[in-house]
Amino acid sequence: MRLRDRDSGSKGTERTFGSSLSFCVVLAEGILTTLSQSNGKYKYDYATVPFLAEVFKLIVSSLLLWRECRISPSVRITTDWRSVRLYPIPSVIYLIHNNVQFATLVYVDTSTYQILGNLKIVTTGILFRLFLRKKLSNLQWIAIVLLAVGTTTSQVKGCGEASCDSLFSAPIQGYMLGILSACMSALAGVYTEFLMKKNNDSLYWQNVQLYTFGVIFNIARLGFDDFRGEFENGPWWQRLFNGYSLTTWLVVLNLGSTGLLVSWLMKYADNIVKVYSTSMAMLLTMVLSVYLFTFKPTLQLFLGIIICMMSLHMYFAPPNMLIDLPLPVKATTESLKEVSVEQKSDS
Amino acid sequence: MRLRDRDSGSKGTERTFGSSLSFCVVLAEGILTTLSQSNGKYKYDYATVPFLAEVFKLIVSSLLLWRECRISPSVRITTDWRSVRLYPIPSVIYLIHNNVQFATLVYVDTSTYQILGNLKIVTTGILFRLFLRKKLSNLQWIAIVLLAVGTTTSQVKGCGEASCDSLFSAPIQGYMLGILSACMSALAGVYTEFLMKKNNDSLYWQNVQLYTFGVIFNIARLGFDDFRGEFENGPWWQRLFNGYSLTTWLVVLNLGSTGLLVSWLMKYADNIVKVYSTSMAMLLTMVLSVYLFTFKPTLQLFLGIIICMMSLHMYFAPPNMLIDLPLPVKATTESLKEVSVEQKSDS
Repeated sequence: MRLRDRDSGSKGTERTFGSSLSFCVVLAEGILTTLSQSNGKYKYDYATVPFLAEVFKLIVSSLLLWRECRISPSVRITTDWRSVRLYPIPSVIYLIHNNVQFATLVYVDTSTYQILGNLKIVTTGILFRLFLRKKLSNLQWIAIVLLAVGTTTSQVKGCGEASCDSLFSAPIQGYMLGILSACMSALAGVYTEFLMKKNNDSLYWQNVQLYTFGVIFNIARLGFDDFRGEFENGPWWQRLFNGYSLTTWLVVLNLGSTGLLVSWLMKYADNIVKVYSTSMAMLLTMVLSVYLFTFKPTLQLFLGIIICMMSLHMYFAPPNMLIDLPLPVKATTESLKEVSVEQKSDS
Repeated sequence: MRLRDRDSGSKGTERTFGSSLSFCVVLAEGILTTLSQSNGKYKYDYATVPFLAEVFKLIVSSLLLWRECRISPSVRITTDWRSVRLYPIPSVIYLIHNNVQFATLVYVDTSTYQILGNLKIVTTGILFRLFLRKKLSNLQWIAIVLLAVGTTTSQVKGCGEASCDSLFSAPIQGYMLGILSACMSALAGVYTEFLMKKNNDSLYWQNVQLYTFGVIFNIARLGFDDFRGEFENGPWWQRLFNGYSLTTWLVVLNLGSTGLLVSWLMKYADNIVKVYSTSMAMLLTMVLSVYLFTFKPTLQLFLGIIICMMSLHMYFAPPNMLIDLPLPVKATTESLKEVSVEQKSDS
């Protein structure tokens, strides 16, 4: 299901459009999240944002499914329990991932955590190969490793930036949890791709199932957090919109749109396209931040961008664009043509 | 003349041996130069080191040429003026390069100069293509750019390191001179390769010509420096061995050996092999420095090493190791085999 497949036709264009759109949305995410903070802190309860985003995605998907059913009556909808029961699993994986994330941050600082996060590019490649049985060429593996190296390079703390002595001085548990976190994140992505491509069900029906469980799990989580905090701030539904500004709502809409686009990518493209799309958006966010938030541009950002561009080209360009095919093979093909021409003239 | 050429046979092994040896010598260079300094300054007149290295190379080459002539009387030696007159040109290029280097350092600090120095990897690739007419595949170009990016990444100043604000804040003239310097350096390499491969002359005879002019140009330079300094420290031959220690002599021997190995690489391998060899040695020097001089290991060094390793693999690995050849070609080859088998059974 790679972009370079020859048999894709109009789906290829759709896919390119989809990944560009997802690129823009992820791009907006970084900028909006920065804008919605004041002095680096959120004015609102951050845990309510993912819940509202799930609700938004569920509403949009339901509307689209309703519209799709009206237009064509032949929409494929599998309501068999053996199919439906697979849809809470991504939510379960994300829940475990969230907890692993928190556990990791006990041992490592946020800079190290950000650096370790790039590992998920490589783990996604590995699980993509193992579970979805997609074959990757040696060069595509190199490209994936380079993408991870490139995004890491762009995040290397420059001189003058504070609190950098702690990088890679964390206890070993921190790194092990970081690796586990990268594996969980990759597993969620690969499992979702398996789920979306498993049958020809309508994307919107698949989304409705996915997000219904998403909403349920988010409610459970908010309730559990309240319970653990002994209802100090009251139940979550009373402080749902506390401190919400226009920017916060934009963050919610954005997170929701990212989710919708990712599930679209999982159905019609794949995890690797998603990984490239988000990495490129991350880099462009950093470039735009230089102008929007007067960040200091660094040499490592520039180097990271070059590495990622090279990696993108190496992964998606057709092989004959990268390597001059060895002469003997070409000669063979030509001589075969001659042979078949001769055979035709014989008959 | 690439390492992967199939028709190389024993020469391939020789080449690998040569580049490994040159790797070790460049490796020793970095460590010895650091050892021969005290408090970051040289105790001896640094300008005399290249002169003595040229003398060393001339003596070694003359001895080897004499031995070669004794063993086989059929040694090819071209003494035609039209050939000999080409040999001072590398010395002239190095002389101009030296002056461009000094001019560059007027505008940029040494960190920026070191970073700009990595450009010579790319300029070597370009001149190698243009002047020596060697075709490089798209992938090999990517590999060369990645090698330059990788070595640059490893040199990015970490946080805590002093005097980094000046990076890329130099006047535009500095960068233009830096680029010119990279071009001159590449030109010297590519011209030497052209010279060494031009005919089947004995390598030692070519070296003798090269180093004779090298010694002459070095004497001229030392004399000119004295003249400009109004003989304040006396003529150069009186202070030739001032402050020389065992380490200084090792630096001389090392610089000489590097020169001999490079001219060997230019004759039997090529500029790209040299560029990889020196880059890898530079990285290993940095790793060894962590242990020998208690340098702090940085994340960027680690990333740089990964990038350069990937680049090495991409440049030298045979294409079919990197990319699964497209199916139609394979099928064609197989059906051709079948056709030829049928034809054989027919006859």
